[in-house]
Amino acid sequence: MSQPAPVTMSATLAADEALERRRRAGERVLSLASGEIGLPVLPELRERLAAAAGLGAYGPVAGSPALRAAAAGYWGRRNLDTDPEMVVCGPGSKPVLFALMLAVGGDVVVPVPSWVSYAAQARLAGAQPLHVPTLPGQGGVPDPAALREAVTAARAAGRDPRCVVVTLPDNPTGTVAEPDTLRRLAAAARDLDLVIVSDEIYCDLVFEGADRALSPAVFAPERTVVTTGLTKNLAVGGWRMGVARLPEGPLGRALRDRLEAVASQTWSTTAAPVQAAAAYAFAEPPEVLAYVAAARRLHETVVRAVHRHFTAAGAALTPVRATSYLYPDFEPLRDHLAAAHGVSGGGELAALLADRHGLGVLPGSAFGEPDRVLRVRAATSRLYGDTEERRTQALHSSAPLELPWIKASLDRIEEVLHDLVHVPAPASVPTI
Amino acid sequence: MSQPAPVTMSATLAADEALERRRRAGERVLSLASGEIGLPVLPELRERLAAAAGLGAYGPVAGSPALRAAAAGYWGRRNLDTDPEMVVCGPGSKPVLFALMLAVGGDVVVPVPSWVSYAAQARLAGAQPLHVPTLPGQGGVPDPAALREAVTAARAAGRDPRCVVVTLPDNPTGTVAEPDTLRRLAAAARDLDLVIVSDEIYCDLVFEGADRALSPAVFAPERTVVTTGLTKNLAVGGWRMGVARLPEGPLGRALRDRLEAVASQTWSTTAAPVQAAAAYAFAEPPEVLAYVAAARRLHETVVRAVHRHFTAAGAALTPVRATSYLYPDFEPLRDHLAAAHGVSGGGELAALLADRHGLGVLPGSAFGEPDRVLRVRAATSRLYGDTEERRTQALHSSAPLELPWIKASLDRIEEVLHDLVHVPAPASVPTI
Repeated sequence: MSQPAPVTMSATLAADEALERRRRAGERVLSLASGEIGLPVLPELRERLAAAAGLGAYGPVAGSPALRAAAAGYWGRRNLDTDPEMVVCGPGSKPVLFALMLAVGGDVVVPVPSWVSYAAQARLAGAQPLHVPTLPGQGGVPDPAALREAVTAARAAGRDPRCVVVTLPDNPTGTVAEPDTLRRLAAAARDLDLVIVSDEIYCDLVFEGADRALSPAVFAPERTVVTTGLTKNLAVGGWRMGVARLPEGPLGRALRDRLEAVASQTWSTTAAPVQAAAAYAFAEPPEVLAYVAAARRLHETVVRAVHRHFTAAGAALTPVRATSYLYPDFEPLRDHLAAAHGVSGGGELAALLADRHGLGVLPGSAFGEPDRVLRVRAATSRLYGDTEERRTQALHSSAPLELPWIKASLDRIEEVLHDLVHVPAPASVPTI
Repeated sequence: MSQPAPVTMSATLAADEALERRRRAGERVLSLASGEIGLPVLPELRERLAAAAGLGAYGPVAGSPALRAAAAGYWGRRNLDTDPEMVVCGPGSKPVLFALMLAVGGDVVVPVPSWVSYAAQARLAGAQPLHVPTLPGQGGVPDPAALREAVTAARAAGRDPRCVVVTLPDNPTGTVAEPDTLRRLAAAARDLDLVIVSDEIYCDLVFEGADRALSPAVFAPERTVVTTGLTKNLAVGGWRMGVARLPEGPLGRALRDRLEAVASQTWSTTAAPVQAAAAYAFAEPPEVLAYVAAARRLHETVVRAVHRHFTAAGAALTPVRATSYLYPDFEPLRDHLAAAHGVSGGGELAALLADRHGLGVLPGSAFGEPDRVLRVRAATSRLYGDTEERRTQALHSSAPLELPWIKASLDRIEEVLHDLVHVPAPASVPTI
């Protein structure tokens, strides 16, 4: 007997749809809420999908042999040798992550902060999320010492944590956990007998080559499942395709079989034309590599510019090393925000920015933080233009900050933050 | 705390993949296992998908406004007035059905026999399936009197059934429940306060117009969710698209919101190019209607021919009124099968047909029957040819049974059944 699963709409998607309604109603809005990559589809990729439109038949549940071989090659080039048999494809990395939770069973450790859907998925899978904080600058990976404590305590209390989800590079912080953190995570997972599910959908969006995110699969190869997809690299979130790489060995094979069984009962297979295009993309021909490199440069330029505006306004931020996410902490401005705006938590701050300025961001609470934390997540990947033409120009520009539409958005962000910080507290209300 | 979800590979998809491996190994196989529709994609539909290949962005979770309006129109033309706001799209009707189980919560009543994935999905959703038998000729709908008894008993035992899944027309029996059965189902569901989830993916494949399957939504409009997709009508199972129509009223609105929330956390949205093609298809322009009509005629001709072979062999079958499924009962041949082949249940019968004759069917146990039941499901929708050209010819043929490749398959089925029935019991083993 089950209760209706406790579930609320994905914060990202909900914020996105709300802003879109306001935009249609003629309001001036600027969305930093969704992490969607606002870039055009690479023409060659589009052509591959179109050419595969005649594929109407179901293929294998785990994905076509061509796709699985291509994904294995992709990981192989990242120092993760992969047997195509250990690759399972699904209609997005989101359903693949959910199916993994169903396949592993038990409770799930999620970092705080972390992506909006991990904890929600754990609850839908009938599990309880165990929240473990991350260390500063090591976003996406729970503090290994705290992980040991939390899992030990949970087991003593009769709970059954069996896996830990990590994000490398991280959403929402844009940071990349360091090798030493991963080494300690791997040791803790081994001692605690936890499966590591490593969401590496941003792994090609690390700004400096030497910083390329390492995978926990390097440190705990026997127990780490890696997931990725095309959404972030190639701006095709709307195509829905994700892949998981299961570990070699008996644990991995058992998990693979269970994952495939869950997939067979819940989604059957992934859209065949999308798989055909994905097989091409994972082979990484020169035009795909050039697109990803151009997108990465653009993300870096724009996210760093917005980073400067948040810093200038007085928010605390760790340096961003990857993705197009910022996770500013307005704690240094707590007194002012309370006095001038009556704001004392992340939810109120996000609401103020949306209602007063039409600026969409997500509160830290969407990422598992207590509501009093004065953090919001800002995603800069939709500032590249509203038309296909502008987006294409942005992708290929050597000075994207000078493109008038991008400059206007950045100026608007600066103006909003200035207003937020410099509006004096109402004279009639003592601030102390 | 949850145990790893009990789950096995979808019987249909597993049988399919096993037969495909044998075919590749050079064996002579004939698959009646999977209900995949072996027909080419309608060229105009293919073109719509290709033309939408540039759609890389996420759309609304519930589906694009165009798709939802088109699906509402489709149902409207079937006497189910539909508000587009009450339509939710997902990557296949399979994930939509699973998400509905998560959204409704509680235990799930499934008919016996019924499609392989309902009970498996209920278990994955943390529920227990309650199996209720159907009445003869009324496949897909649990006997309403037995439904009342089972739910009352389950509740008395502390269980919490909240919905009943029905299939109209039915898989595996190819029958269509009659209006009186639906009326009694609706009354029972109302008295028991159950949601009816009506899987109507075969509703356009009823052979005689006057027989068009009625929906339980006609009899219990306030509590019936209807699902469908393009897979069966347009032979694009590999594209993955399904839609649900939620009921009007407070129950329906609450369910819609929960379904959308589950969708947002588990699949985000459905492949945008597929949605664009589906919006075109649900509008039912003349070429789509002509394709569906031609496919329906072909299904009818071939399934009835195979029906005759099973009947001639001595199996018991109800008349098939829709789909391309047969569900022969070999009970009249029980003694012979036991004596001649050592077969005493559906699983052994399916194994014998596969191993000795390369003929793939599914045992009744895959549909929830006890293993001793001597039933198998045969799907005839992949007998139309192995190449695009042959399939196209079959679709447009006025005498498909005379096409040599279809004739060869039917002859082979006849031969296998003849062998099954006429191989004498081994002389050395007394049969009594």
